[in-house]
Amino acid sequence: MTDLLPFVADLPLVDHHCHGVVTRDVARADFEAMLTEADAPSPLGTSLFDSLIGLAVRERCAPVLDLPKHAPADAYLERRAELGAAEVARRFLRGTGTTDFLLDGGFLPDSLTGTHEFAELADARAHDIVRLEQVAEAVIRGTTAGGFAAAFADELGKRAETAAGLKSIAAYRVGLQLAGEPPSPAEVTAAAGRWLRSGTPRLADEVLHRFLVFTGLDLGLPVQFHVGYGDADVDLHRCDPLHLTAFLRATRDRGVPILLLHNYPFHRNAAYLAQVFEHVFADVGLATHNAGLRAPAILAELLEIAPFGKILFSTDAFGLAELYHLGTALFRQGLSDFLRAALDAGAMSEVDAARLCALVGHENAKRIYRWEHA
Amino acid sequence: MTDLLPFVADLPLVDHHCHGVVTRDVARADFEAMLTEADAPSPLGTSLFDSLIGLAVRERCAPVLDLPKHAPADAYLERRAELGAAEVARRFLRGTGTTDFLLDGGFLPDSLTGTHEFAELADARAHDIVRLEQVAEAVIRGTTAGGFAAAFADELGKRAETAAGLKSIAAYRVGLQLAGEPPSPAEVTAAAGRWLRSGTPRLADEVLHRFLVFTGLDLGLPVQFHVGYGDADVDLHRCDPLHLTAFLRATRDRGVPILLLHNYPFHRNAAYLAQVFEHVFADVGLATHNAGLRAPAILAELLEIAPFGKILFSTDAFGLAELYHLGTALFRQGLSDFLRAALDAGAMSEVDAARLCALVGHENAKRIYRWEHA
Amino acid sequence: MTDLLPFVADLPLVDHHCHGVVTRDVARADFEAMLTEADAPSPLGTSLFDSLIGLAVRERCAPVLDLPKHAPADAYLERRAELGAAEVARRFLRGTGTTDFLLDGGFLPDSLTGTHEFAELADARAHDIVRLEQVAEAVIRGTTAGGFAAAFADELGKRAETAAGLKSIAAYRVGLQLAGEPPSPAEVTAAAGRWLRSGTPRLADEVLHRFLVFTGLDLGLPVQFHVGYGDADVDLHRCDPLHLTAFLRATRDRGVPILLLHNYPFHRNAAYLAQVFEHVFADVGLATHNAGLRAPAILAELLEIAPFGKILFSTDAFGLAELYHLGTALFRQGLSDFLRAALDAGAMSEVDAARLCALVGHENAKRIYRWEHA
Repeated sequence: MTDLLPFVADLPLVDHHCHGVVTRDVARADFEAMLTEADAPSPLGTSLFDSLIGLAVRERCAPVLDLPKHAPADAYLERRAELGAAEVARRFLRGTGTTDFLLDGGFLPDSLTGTHEFAELADARAHDIVRLEQVAEAVIRGTTAGGFAAAFADELGKRAETAAGLKSIAAYRVGLQLAGEPPSPAEVTAAAGRWLRSGTPRLADEVLHRFLVFTGLDLGLPVQFHVGYGDADVDLHRCDPLHLTAFLRATRDRGVPILLLHNYPFHRNAAYLAQVFEHVFADVGLATHNAGLRAPAILAELLEIAPFGKILFSTDAFGLAELYHLGTALFRQGLSDFLRAALDAGAMSEVDAARLCALVGHENAKRIYRWEHA
Repeated sequence: MTDLLPFVADLPLVDHHCHGVVTRDVARADFEAMLTEADAPSPLGTSLFDSLIGLAVRERCAPVLDLPKHAPADAYLERRAELGAAEVARRFLRGTGTTDFLLDGGFLPDSLTGTHEFAELADARAHDIVRLEQVAEAVIRGTTAGGFAAAFADELGKRAETAAGLKSIAAYRVGLQLAGEPPSPAEVTAAAGRWLRSGTPRLADEVLHRFLVFTGLDLGLPVQFHVGYGDADVDLHRCDPLHLTAFLRATRDRGVPILLLHNYPFHRNAAYLAQVFEHVFADVGLATHNAGLRAPAILAELLEIAPFGKILFSTDAFGLAELYHLGTALFRQGLSDFLRAALDAGAMSEVDAARLCALVGHENAKRIYRWEHA
Repeated sequence: MTDLLPFVADLPLVDHHCHGVVTRDVARADFEAMLTEADAPSPLGTSLFDSLIGLAVRERCAPVLDLPKHAPADAYLERRAELGAAEVARRFLRGTGTTDFLLDGGFLPDSLTGTHEFAELADARAHDIVRLEQVAEAVIRGTTAGGFAAAFADELGKRAETAAGLKSIAAYRVGLQLAGEPPSPAEVTAAAGRWLRSGTPRLADEVLHRFLVFTGLDLGLPVQFHVGYGDADVDLHRCDPLHLTAFLRATRDRGVPILLLHNYPFHRNAAYLAQVFEHVFADVGLATHNAGLRAPAILAELLEIAPFGKILFSTDAFGLAELYHLGTALFRQGLSDFLRAALDAGAMSEVDAARLCALVGHENAKRIYRWEHA
């Protein structure tokens, strides 16, 4: 890790995938639980502060709260409480240099800020990403098996009017082995019937997840997929982006961008897909802040075979204001380290380095997503 | 690679997974065969000394036998023979800085030292890890299909009284796709019947491997799993730790530690599991000495998302005394390189670095395993 | 990246897997399409020059065409056209330091140079690698289901007389999960019948791909397998070399070399197979030039557990003369960086480093392949 290159330090960012922030104060156990993808500190383990992300909080976040670098965890949390969640959020969010946040508001919406509140806290633009499954789970409650398809398409069409993009969490529910063809109306009806009869509000049916995605593609909106790394609910071996190969091959001629989120530890596989399929884009959000000082190593692996025109920036920050700051700062660190090594080796010119930064930092996102820019 | 940080050089280690050492003298072909996971030097290839582990032997082991660094292989083996296997074992084992060795005595026990002999050679404590399959394969010879479950539980209970932990080699026999529920008594009886009728002494049946593990969990003893890298008997694609996801999810509330051994080249997957499941721990033994100067790169990947409270040290040394030395020295090198880079970048304080070392080097193991410490 | 070690800079190379070069002039869109495994620049993305391979062309190829480093893409292509394809090919091919090229002439033979023309352009020796599927697809047109096996064996026998080795592209057609036994004559006849009835000239049948490979093994010629990374036609998840485990275990006693090509991003898995199976060898061709300045990082991962006697050099260059130059230059860079770091750390002697270079650069290939050397 070296000092940031000036054009990386000043790079305006579009965070194309993140979530709302909590506005209540959080105690240590809550803080630790939100710090990583673990549900809670382990009685068999030690503090989650003893991890690269925990060390990164103490190194990179403590100074933002006026503490010395490496302040102990308890001192950090005390100072955090003293400042209050709103002030903490403002400091971290406003320091990111992010002009536009694309918020997936579909997970635990009641305990997080919505898009408008977030924009205000961050003093930036915030845009909605609609989680397909959340829409489906709302729609199913008021419809029949035969009526589900139309009701979903109708509701999604309305939600899409003000959305920058859509997101599928099929990975969490059935894995990524989606077939390449949209299901037939009869298949959708049958699946919706099974879902209704099951009595569970939670969608987990390959036919329906696929139907949701194809309905989204028909609207022409970019579709994000959760891929790879996530919490203990994920069956990670079903979340390798390569399972999407048939689906991607079948949808490449539609001209609709598909965005593979996170991808770790399958980020090289995602980079391959981003190279060979015209409509595929990838990031390493979530891993960036979780891996702390190793974030640059992960980003470098993503950049091996993925063209710079196909890489995006995201934090996948959720809940803790620190995560926006860390995701952003560690992304800048990784990009700067990568480019500085290339410049030192004479492998690219500074003009190129600055141009590639702009692609990855915001230009790719602005080319792909639908929203008006100031 | 840089000089070891003083607190890494002096770190007392618990080697939570290794095997006995051979006490006979070994000729070159034997030595090469024990050096890596290959069965023997290849007639199509070249000497196994022409590998990173072979270079590491000549770099790091030659001086321990009073030879200059990089002494040729033949000179090395000549000097080794001159000193005799017992003196060689004493030099390498006593120089590791390991206070406690946890020995899996279940593979080729007749050609290796047992626990007591090992402790004496190493001038350290040695503890037994009981290989579940070895117990089952002994028990099956004197029982019936219907009597197997009780006979196994009884024998394991006895063996467990003096054991620090248990180990499953399901990976070698059926892969890691174990179901999350213990098999029913009827299933165990049926499987034991199949085994008895097959006439083979070797256990390879998902139901029974799973029964063994659950019987072990009921005793509350930590259970190690062979994962990933091993010899040509392994079907490596069935040994990705992610195949254990359902099993780990089903056993997370039991409070019994599960230890994922080796893991290479799936060590990032293992790190993920160690982060999200309370009871899961991981190491990169075996790869550490096999990868020689690349060991630090592998350890760094493990440390990306696994909390320091969930990482253990092991060598998985087997047979050759050199492997204990190399596994230990290269682990120290990797840990030191990682921490030194972090310290140089200001990413952690020296106090933290020393504390994290202690966790990984011995504290985690002492918290998890059952044995009395002096 | 540092200056090349002298014995790496001067190392004579055998490129054990590449293709012919195009001798027509190419426009920018064609050039970009041949630069990576993408079919064409993406309308949603940006120029494929904005990738590590694109930057490597401008850094490392521009000076060969008398342009300054980092010349813009358009200036580069203009100069390329000015010199003409033949002169460009001569400059790049003759500058590689390659003494022997092993050419797979089985893909798009009409638009690429053949072996003789290539040898002349490169002023080097060129040898034929026979693509098994190309022979089968030629033979099937003139035979019956029952006659296919003998006709194929007969034709392959003839082609093999002047061939250095054989190649299977089963990965592209059915994936690498080949069974370990040769199919029975009845199975081959049945499969050939299915193929004939299908009316498609393209072979894609596990039984037949396997039959081709075993017929090749019977001839005793080294058999190359496409593994891992390739274009959008590949189902990459079926191309992990670990899927070959059963096949490799079943064929290890034949003494016939099996060569795993490319392997990225599964190159650590390939290294494992190269360590534990006597007859298995591996390279990281294709990835080397595609990953540009990251090629050294990839090569280092391959070298972790694969013995140096089991690693080969290849470019997998296809079509563009630049790719032979880049694949070679980046391989030298990676090998040199790796060895320099080892030398700086005292992890090997310079004598060893030079010897290991020779193994990987040409000695392993000369030991394995069948051809007479000047």
